[in-house]
Amino acid sequence: MSYFDAASAAPLHPVARQALLASLDEGWADPARLYKEGRRARLLLDAAREAAAEAVGCRPDELVFTPSGTAAVHSGIAGALAGRRRTGRHLIVSAVEHSSVLHTAEVHRDGGGTVTEVPVDRTGAVRPAEFAEALRPDTALACLQSANHEVGTLQPVAEAAGACRAAGVPLLVDAAQSLGWGPVEGDWSLLAASAHKWGGPSGVGLLVVRKGVRFAPQGPRDERESGRAPGFENLPAIVAAAASLRAVRAEAAQEAARLRELTERIRARVPALVPDVEVVGDPERRLPGVVTFSCLYVDGETVLHELDRAGFSVSSGSSCTSSTLTPSHVLRAMGVLSEGNVRVSLPPGTTEEDVERFLAVLPGVVAGVREKLGAPVSRTETVTEERDEALVVDALGRRCPIPVIELAKVIGDVPVGGLVRVLADDEAARLDIPAWCEMRGQEYVGEQPADRGAAYVVRRLS
Amino acid sequence: MSYFDAASAAPLHPVARQALLASLDEGWADPARLYKEGRRARLLLDAAREAAAEAVGCRPDELVFTPSGTAAVHSGIAGALAGRRRTGRHLIVSAVEHSSVLHTAEVHRDGGGTVTEVPVDRTGAVRPAEFAEALRPDTALACLQSANHEVGTLQPVAEAAGACRAAGVPLLVDAAQSLGWGPVEGDWSLLAASAHKWGGPSGVGLLVVRKGVRFAPQGPRDERESGRAPGFENLPAIVAAAASLRAVRAEAAQEAARLRELTERIRARVPALVPDVEVVGDPERRLPGVVTFSCLYVDGETVLHELDRAGFSVSSGSSCTSSTLTPSHVLRAMGVLSEGNVRVSLPPGTTEEDVERFLAVLPGVVAGVREKLGAPVSRTETVTEERDEALVVDALGRRCPIPVIELAKVIGDVPVGGLVRVLADDEAARLDIPAWCEMRGQEYVGEQPADRGAAYVVRRLS
Repeated sequence: MSYFDAASAAPLHPVARQALLASLDEGWADPARLYKEGRRARLLLDAAREAAAEAVGCRPDELVFTPSGTAAVHSGIAGALAGRRRTGRHLIVSAVEHSSVLHTAEVHRDGGGTVTEVPVDRTGAVRPAEFAEALRPDTALACLQSANHEVGTLQPVAEAAGACRAAGVPLLVDAAQSLGWGPVEGDWSLLAASAHKWGGPSGVGLLVVRKGVRFAPQGPRDERESGRAPGFENLPAIVAAAASLRAVRAEAAQEAARLRELTERIRARVPALVPDVEVVGDPERRLPGVVTFSCLYVDGETVLHELDRAGFSVSSGSSCTSSTLTPSHVLRAMGVLSEGNVRVSLPPGTTEEDVERFLAVLPGVVAGVREKLGAPVSRTETVTEERDEALVVDALGRRCPIPVIELAKVIGDVPVGGLVRVLADDEAARLDIPAWCEMRGQEYVGEQPADRGAAYVVRRLS
Repeated sequence: MSYFDAASAAPLHPVARQALLASLDEGWADPARLYKEGRRARLLLDAAREAAAEAVGCRPDELVFTPSGTAAVHSGIAGALAGRRRTGRHLIVSAVEHSSVLHTAEVHRDGGGTVTEVPVDRTGAVRPAEFAEALRPDTALACLQSANHEVGTLQPVAEAAGACRAAGVPLLVDAAQSLGWGPVEGDWSLLAASAHKWGGPSGVGLLVVRKGVRFAPQGPRDERESGRAPGFENLPAIVAAAASLRAVRAEAAQEAARLRELTERIRARVPALVPDVEVVGDPERRLPGVVTFSCLYVDGETVLHELDRAGFSVSSGSSCTSSTLTPSHVLRAMGVLSEGNVRVSLPPGTTEEDVERFLAVLPGVVAGVREKLGAPVSRTETVTEERDEALVVDALGRRCPIPVIELAKVIGDVPVGGLVRVLADDEAARLDIPAWCEMRGQEYVGEQPADRGAAYVVRRLS
């Protein structure tokens, strides 16, 4: 088996395992107690905090341990917004933040706050000037991830932090995807991260609040972790989290270079091996181990299933793989194809052989899925007769990628300059039909209301 | 070392340790993913949920794992209150609930809700009739612990649940202290618990919401754990929590009988070995391993420190051991002495020898502390002269137990029927001076305002 989904959860680092085992006997008591077992637990907690703070680049008293990265984001945003409530209730987020950030923004909006979602370019990055322009006199907080979790694109955090600092607005950085690779650059104010992303155990997140940042913890009072993370400390796991962060950092430079070379191979060779593929995300400013591509005319769920059968564990931002049947908000914000989406995120230690085997297996998997779905093998150049002004493709009730497959099947029948209307009610079509047009050099005219779903109008250009 | 603070955190049960180790390799991946590692993690999570549900006595789909018992209480109360907001905003809690419950009640009150705190008797138990009387047409939720964490007294949960059920009000039971000993009796609606109290790892709590109970999770949306516990599941720890709950249950009946005999010894012999001691909590309806007593004329912090030096780890509800310098709200609600408070909570496996050694050491420790503080050795019967109507003891600026020691020193100088006024600004005096009067057969007349602190007036009766 090759596990290629490190961006979801990395396997436990050997140092995390050792530290966890070593602290099970010393770290179970309440660190708030004054007796021997409590003092031992307190020493472990203090040492873990110092180690984590050193890796983050902050003071130990600025860092608390939370039960998860999600909890760190929830508490960090809520506390910072409440701390600056007098300034205003405006929150800035990028459109491609992790769902934990966007869901916290939703709660803020539902509670009467205002939220600006800064769009991203086609690589998934915010433009620093656009991020800065979103700042207003009533902005309480801005949030920007250090790197995107679905496509690996690095965000211009240092520039954003500079603009925020100039405006007197704190910037919260969700560093979940990058903290194992190095400290977050720039003059940020708050930071959230998650240990199981860097090979630490689950059950541990980090929340850093720089001295001087106004912060009012929300929810019921609790004395633990400076009042910022209620509940008994998850101690042996905290020790393991801090120890493994140090360990992955020690290996980071070398491992980053190695993984970057491997993902570069995938970036370069997948489009050559598999027809009708779009590799997404920034080719340069990106995480070392992440590469994401979308394949026309296949559904992500079947691809994932077939790759799993072939021994590869990957994830997908396609709508057919999500419980809500909507495509990834990240791919949507980037305006790229979401169907047949595959994210490969290599854990440290991935071998060249694993990657070569993946590249050997992928073309057959995609071809097999396409064949089953009856996707067009290549662009047909049929002689076109005169037809009605707009050909109609009825894909109502059909899930992704069928609407795009049906469109591709008929486009050859449309006279150049002619229109085709695709009726579809799968939410993914709204994203994937324009993306297909862009990939295929056809014109996406727009969306029209329809009795059911919507009609997506395409003009044949070539 | 003898660790006698199991009510704070129990040492890791051997089964928890084994289950944790066994699942580190299988349980690190995201259980929401469809590939092999994800499916394995899902199997572990499902099996843990079934095991925990069986031990609780609920359906697996009624139980979610939270990051701590505190998180379970916070989410459970907030979700139940929101789910029944149309009914009203009245919340009932007992006065001796865990701080996580009372702090959630505070937030509710701050948000415009109303809260009734049902008082307890001198043993620490609510009276079922009084609890039932607190129910109103606008009551959204009632909360009652299964057993008190400081004095071990069992609460009449079944009766309270019956009254709530009759009124159509859900009852949330904080079962943190008792779940390892057995399922919670009665027809309750919600239940919260914490794994590290039964010998499971830290980082795992349980929240049970019975089918049919209106529940609206608060905070940002998250798909994990039925939307009731955001963040990546703390999986190997969850497996260890469930496994150890089964294991401690298998040993519960035998271990309860053994520990009950040991705590009975402490209950019976401490008052005989140490003068001026009050054993608190219900002598019969109580947890097997918990016994709590308060010693006049000593401060809890020094006693804890001296016991720690002698190899015993215990905790205290005395104000001098809390960061807020206020005595335990539990002891206050019971109206019992808080000074020199010692809670002994025996973990399973505690030996008779440990307890005998504790009984051998305790009298010397208390006597030593009293001697240092200049406490009265015995009640002096001096011939009283005529004095001013009220003798004044100035204990301003002095911390517990000095005000009570000073009172005890002069009481012999007061003519029978005469008054003494104790000036004190330590919050503990408000509780401890009346408690001392009750223990000593003197009359506590009441509290008078003073320039600084308060004046506590005592009449000598004997």
